[in-house]
Amino acid sequence: MDNFTFYSPTYFVFGKNTEDQTGACVKRFGGHKVLIHYGGGSVVRSGLLDRVKKSLEKENIPYVELGGVKANPRSGMVYKGIELARKEKVDFILPVGGGSVIDSAKAIAFGVLYDGDFWDFYDEARPVTEALPVGVVLTLAATGSEGSTDAVITKEEGMYKRCVDGDILRPLFAIMNPQLTTTLPPYQTASGISDIMAHCMERYFTHSKEVETTDRLLEAVMLTMVKEAKRVMAEPDNYEARANIMWCGTIAHNNMTGVGRIQDWGTHHMENELSSTYGCSHGAGLAILFPSWMKYVMNLDINRFAQFAVRVWGCQMNFEDPSVTAREGIEAYQNFIHMLELPTSISEIGGKEDDIPALAQSMFHNAPNHGNFLKLTEDIAKEIYRMAL
Amino acid sequence: MDNFTFYSPTYFVFGKNTEDQTGACVKRFGGHKVLIHYGGGSVVRSGLLDRVKKSLEKENIPYVELGGVKANPRSGMVYKGIELARKEKVDFILPVGGGSVIDSAKAIAFGVLYDGDFWDFYDEARPVTEALPVGVVLTLAATGSEGSTDAVITKEEGMYKRCVDGDILRPLFAIMNPQLTTTLPPYQTASGISDIMAHCMERYFTHSKEVETTDRLLEAVMLTMVKEAKRVMAEPDNYEARANIMWCGTIAHNNMTGVGRIQDWGTHHMENELSSTYGCSHGAGLAILFPSWMKYVMNLDINRFAQFAVRVWGCQMNFEDPSVTAREGIEAYQNFIHMLELPTSISEIGGKEDDIPALAQSMFHNAPNHGNFLKLTEDIAKEIYRMAL
Repeated sequence: MDNFTFYSPTYFVFGKNTEDQTGACVKRFGGHKVLIHYGGGSVVRSGLLDRVKKSLEKENIPYVELGGVKANPRSGMVYKGIELARKEKVDFILPVGGGSVIDSAKAIAFGVLYDGDFWDFYDEARPVTEALPVGVVLTLAATGSEGSTDAVITKEEGMYKRCVDGDILRPLFAIMNPQLTTTLPPYQTASGISDIMAHCMERYFTHSKEVETTDRLLEAVMLTMVKEAKRVMAEPDNYEARANIMWCGTIAHNNMTGVGRIQDWGTHHMENELSSTYGCSHGAGLAILFPSWMKYVMNLDINRFAQFAVRVWGCQMNFEDPSVTAREGIEAYQNFIHMLELPTSISEIGGKEDDIPALAQSMFHNAPNHGNFLKLTEDIAKEIYRMAL
Repeated sequence: MDNFTFYSPTYFVFGKNTEDQTGACVKRFGGHKVLIHYGGGSVVRSGLLDRVKKSLEKENIPYVELGGVKANPRSGMVYKGIELARKEKVDFILPVGGGSVIDSAKAIAFGVLYDGDFWDFYDEARPVTEALPVGVVLTLAATGSEGSTDAVITKEEGMYKRCVDGDILRPLFAIMNPQLTTTLPPYQTASGISDIMAHCMERYFTHSKEVETTDRLLEAVMLTMVKEAKRVMAEPDNYEARANIMWCGTIAHNNMTGVGRIQDWGTHHMENELSSTYGCSHGAGLAILFPSWMKYVMNLDINRFAQFAVRVWGCQMNFEDPSVTAREGIEAYQNFIHMLELPTSISEIGGKEDDIPALAQSMFHNAPNHGNFLKLTEDIAKEIYRMAL
């Protein structure tokens, strides 16, 4: 196990009707004037935005608002948010939504305090060390951004989708009411599930030795997801399945399950090109790529893939030929993706073989390092994209 | 799943040689003058205390010190610490040791700020809301106090062993170097392992439904312990086994594994009487009591005990008669305790049948509520003590 530090000072408020505590949480964490940030009309239509505002008003906390964040959030909205936050002198950013809204809010939060272009941090992969405080009202179990240190934004000029990181980007509080997720369209629910599984797998496939604790914790999250995903696809308004999935989404990515081990993240980086090019959900892109990545890398550690098959998917170990078991695990994961009715190939989302060189080139633009289980080159990325066609 | 809040803002610094970062951590978390609190001679003999002092000196942080904390820490030492901390105007408490030292430090930390007798909080089971900051250098994987909200102290007058709770009692940082635990005597290592398992089991045995995530997380910790405990008893200086056990000790009790479910804690309360009466380790007392408690309560939910047997101990499910499987799980746990060479009966630690009424009476003195899986009465407690004779 490698040396590590772990610091997750987010106050999680989890359960039914917890959005009514938003104002009290902003007050507890010292906010005096709030920028409410959100996406499309669903938070308006559902009445959630009104309930959040009422909760702020109850604590006499003034706010301004900025809606309109799209999935795969873009730099243009971040610039707009920074300008508004400065003009209105807000000291607290309150995203109400899913990962896209939260990431846009995080970028605004550190952009406000930075004199230059916020994109510098993305371009130079510079760690973020200063930001306005962020508190979250979560409406989608997926990215784990409500508890994580990162924020993914797409730069409109060039459509580069990149990630920054910093302990300061962990939200101070996260209000998580699983009821808010019961009305999501199946594609969004499924995309979120795929993302949560991917956050586990990016950590699971490692060459780090002696990491039994985090192996078992990652398996715990994945086993729960295997049970609950099936249930939620059949019964979208099952609160208990939604609740288990929502908490899994957080602990899959606040890094509690990933400490002390080298993580991969190559597939996430390859996926960024799919969602920014074809507009698919991040989770759908991950579902398309992971089986191909797995097949490409499995021979680097057959026993790890066999462990994944046995412990997560309940496959029988083939002691004569563990590679049989390893392949069964990948198949089981593919069946899981089928059950979620997510796309399974790049063609399905509109991609063609001719696009592949540009995807790989964009991925490596100003960004040479991808993957640790296998360090990716442009040629390897192209090959994996081709396998996923 | 029940509504919950979860807030674990401890900064964990984990791995080899991390004690050299003590001074930097105290500085980061705003300490200006420190009370170093410790136990017996081992932290002196090993040179750890000197390394910690050197690290404070490097940051120009003055300190005073108070050693001599015993296992099952007592109120007398807490009064002494409060007096010293006030006289010397320290603003930070730094325990260097295991759970006893940390709990003694926590009691000093809130006692300093309280005008009355610190024991009032124990007597009235009053939640603690104000305390000096505490940072920890951990030398023993066991109580999880380095990340937990509680502090257990024994009042010398009457030998009442009680617990208080409060989010403010979570240490601000915890320095965790598994190397420091490799020289522990086997009895202390085994007692710590037993305590960690018990922290999982107190949470695991619940009537709360739909808690798959935390069930799986608890199983993850227990499965890791089953693997690593055996290894560490055979190879005490195995760093990797020590590291996995140490991190398990923290996550077994910072409540990450226990949110959203009702927990039991009846066996812990029964145990407090054994360690305060016979001077055994807390872990040894738990090892003695748990099998009897399990047998007494298993019929309240045979399937939960069968799940414990199958998922943690690898027993085969007996679908015709799940109670067979449930009993096999309890036996597997007993075999685990045998492997640890811990005592398995109250007689072994010097107890007699005649003592039982006094044990039960002391447990219920000013403290009517014990247990949730089964609410304990004085008569039930006596019966379980008898079964464990």
